[in-house]
Amino acid sequence: MKVAVLGCGSVGSQVVRLLLEQSDELAARVGAPVELAGVAVRRLEAAREVEVPEGLLTTDADALVRRDDVDLVVEVIGGIEPARSLILAALEGGASVVSANKALVAEDGPTLFDAAQKAERDFYYEAAVAGAIPILRPLRESLAGDNVSRVLGIVNGTTNFILDKMDTSGAGFEEALEEAQELGYAEADPTADVEGFDAAAKAAILASLAFHTRVSASDVYREGITEVTAGDVASARDIGCVVKLLALCELRTGPDGERGVSARVHPAMIPRSHPLASVREAYNAVFTESEAAGQLMFYGPGAGGAPTASAVLGDLVTIARNRLAHTTGAGESAHADLTVLPMGETVTRYHVAIDVDDKVGVLSQVAMAFAEHGVSIQNLRQEGRGDDAQLVVVSHEATDAQLRETMQHLEQLESVREVTSVMRVEGGAE
Amino acid sequence: MKVAVLGCGSVGSQVVRLLLEQSDELAARVGAPVELAGVAVRRLEAAREVEVPEGLLTTDADALVRRDDVDLVVEVIGGIEPARSLILAALEGGASVVSANKALVAEDGPTLFDAAQKAERDFYYEAAVAGAIPILRPLRESLAGDNVSRVLGIVNGTTNFILDKMDTSGAGFEEALEEAQELGYAEADPTADVEGFDAAAKAAILASLAFHTRVSASDVYREGITEVTAGDVASARDIGCVVKLLALCELRTGPDGERGVSARVHPAMIPRSHPLASVREAYNAVFTESEAAGQLMFYGPGAGGAPTASAVLGDLVTIARNRLAHTTGAGESAHADLTVLPMGETVTRYHVAIDVDDKVGVLSQVAMAFAEHGVSIQNLRQEGRGDDAQLVVVSHEATDAQLRETMQHLEQLESVREVTSVMRVEGGAE
Repeated sequence: MKVAVLGCGSVGSQVVRLLLEQSDELAARVGAPVELAGVAVRRLEAAREVEVPEGLLTTDADALVRRDDVDLVVEVIGGIEPARSLILAALEGGASVVSANKALVAEDGPTLFDAAQKAERDFYYEAAVAGAIPILRPLRESLAGDNVSRVLGIVNGTTNFILDKMDTSGAGFEEALEEAQELGYAEADPTADVEGFDAAAKAAILASLAFHTRVSASDVYREGITEVTAGDVASARDIGCVVKLLALCELRTGPDGERGVSARVHPAMIPRSHPLASVREAYNAVFTESEAAGQLMFYGPGAGGAPTASAVLGDLVTIARNRLAHTTGAGESAHADLTVLPMGETVTRYHVAIDVDDKVGVLSQVAMAFAEHGVSIQNLRQEGRGDDAQLVVVSHEATDAQLRETMQHLEQLESVREVTSVMRVEGGAE
Repeated sequence: MKVAVLGCGSVGSQVVRLLLEQSDELAARVGAPVELAGVAVRRLEAAREVEVPEGLLTTDADALVRRDDVDLVVEVIGGIEPARSLILAALEGGASVVSANKALVAEDGPTLFDAAQKAERDFYYEAAVAGAIPILRPLRESLAGDNVSRVLGIVNGTTNFILDKMDTSGAGFEEALEEAQELGYAEADPTADVEGFDAAAKAAILASLAFHTRVSASDVYREGITEVTAGDVASARDIGCVVKLLALCELRTGPDGERGVSARVHPAMIPRSHPLASVREAYNAVFTESEAAGQLMFYGPGAGGAPTASAVLGDLVTIARNRLAHTTGAGESAHADLTVLPMGETVTRYHVAIDVDDKVGVLSQVAMAFAEHGVSIQNLRQEGRGDDAQLVVVSHEATDAQLRETMQHLEQLESVREVTSVMRVEGGAE
């Protein structure tokens, strides 16, 4: 089995290291020798975490993936192009492919799945979601006989580190971000992480697998954590919750009885007793709910060169075994083909903090605004008096559209000075 | 795809229910219709949780597994015989087999693996360990390119419920067991659970897969939880720990540099900050440490009809797909063939509570006993005075043999009245 590796950054160099160091063990597990055929890089002369053997480095990735003797291609370049063209060329040329590329799979997965099916080759991408944590394989295979109703994930380590820091130290977003950057948990330009783009790509992949439906990154509703304040985190604490950036994928039955899929990424308050609440620092975890299995959780490091390389190698061993057996694993499963629901139709709960005038009748005005839009209140409490009067409302479940309308209504009330905080509440028993 | 189900108890009836209710969905996922061919039971006239269609019930399991038209056999009878003979007959007859039978796989797995290999059929048993939690597949496939060094599991729900109850309410073992029995978490005869036999079978299966070595139930060192006292649980709390019944599988390098496997089941104190410490009630979790992936945890319901049936159906879909593709999944992997180390050679830490006379020199005598057997003390504190004087020692890592010799030595010291509690400490940073 000859393996070509595309990219030799933090993940690629660990893949190359494991391929070189573990070659005997890998051969035993696969049932045939596994040999590094080449490593494609942008520049031959660059500092690398691994010493690539003489003659194996090349800048011509295109020629490498088309080589007749290459059986397996590992794509760890990232981004859309040239990754996509190289993967397609590899599959057309008869190689099987492992990728860790969440952005590409979330944006254009079907093109790759179709190419793999046409070529009768495997395309695996476990490392694209939650690094080393085996979550795609369990969804695809272990839960194949069950009906998944919901996937809740903490799938971005940077934002979890920041929110955890805000929770434990009382810091604001900017301060926590700076610390994450100093410690190497956040990049100099943190946009992809803190604005939720990275998590949204992973949510699309999780929803696709869980619900046998094509969901792309653009179908995912997305809010980042830049607006989360120290006050929100404190409010969450007051109601026994913690703020996490969640990727939520849910099966929903609409008013007409038709089933649909909802996929969204946003900060949310979850109860401290929820298994996801104890996911600290830069760790990731994915929590699934299914009809027969009930609640499962998968926890581990969500990023990093070595953990991601572990997931890549796991896929590599599987597709190498498939290849020796002249077969392929289960391909994409999109047979359910459900509608992706717009955000307005998804059902959620809200925590709302409102600065109000301390006047008789304010409370009933606010309660009426909720009632008018069909939103039932679970809990309403008044804090402070006079100039500091604040109402804190936690709603029951309602559609996101109803809740948004209620917020607009509140802002127009004369006695409401400002809606200071609005955050969804998830992971409850309701 | 025609499926025969052997056994229609709490798991079997849920398997039958899912096969009947989900047949369209299963057909879509497998790529061919999946049909229930028959259900073998001991008595035709018994109360069941599911209504089996007319004509499908039979008491002749042997004839059912040998039927030419049966492609897949699900064995959920449990126990050694007749389960083993039926599985072997099914494989010989050309069917692939899914089993949830931990006792059989742990006692005589190799016979079944060999039969499957010879027949070129699949034998899958995800449901045998930790119910619905996908753990065998991740060990076998996702971590196939990594090197697992340790598996720590809470794999018995009954004992976890009892220990959790003791921790939260301060109850003793007997009282907590009674509550577990009243709530249906423990059987009338709880021996298999509370004496650790069930967990030991699962430890053998986990160690075999993690270390590519045949480990049987009889290789596993086993202590149950019947001797755990409310005092032990309180002592654990004093040092920031909680008592759990752990299945521990470790790769160890002996003094001669040769690698070996250690597999054991016993109660242990683990730090409250360890991910396993938060596994409450009857839930299960398996924690793995591997070179590249680092720490992973898999959490969920470890027993129950529906969760176990979910794992069975997951296997069923996979082997049905394999069968359609005229192939089989990866078989047993025992190529590492490591020695199973005796308990005396395994390395662990001890928490020891000792009733002593409150005399000058007692503390140094006790410290000397540890030193004489090469056991380094991490922490020693004296509690109380006079008749209530007690020493509490937490050791550094040492071999179990060294620690046992130290305990024997302590009991012979004149100033030692009684060694009141001895428990291993696991899951620490050391």
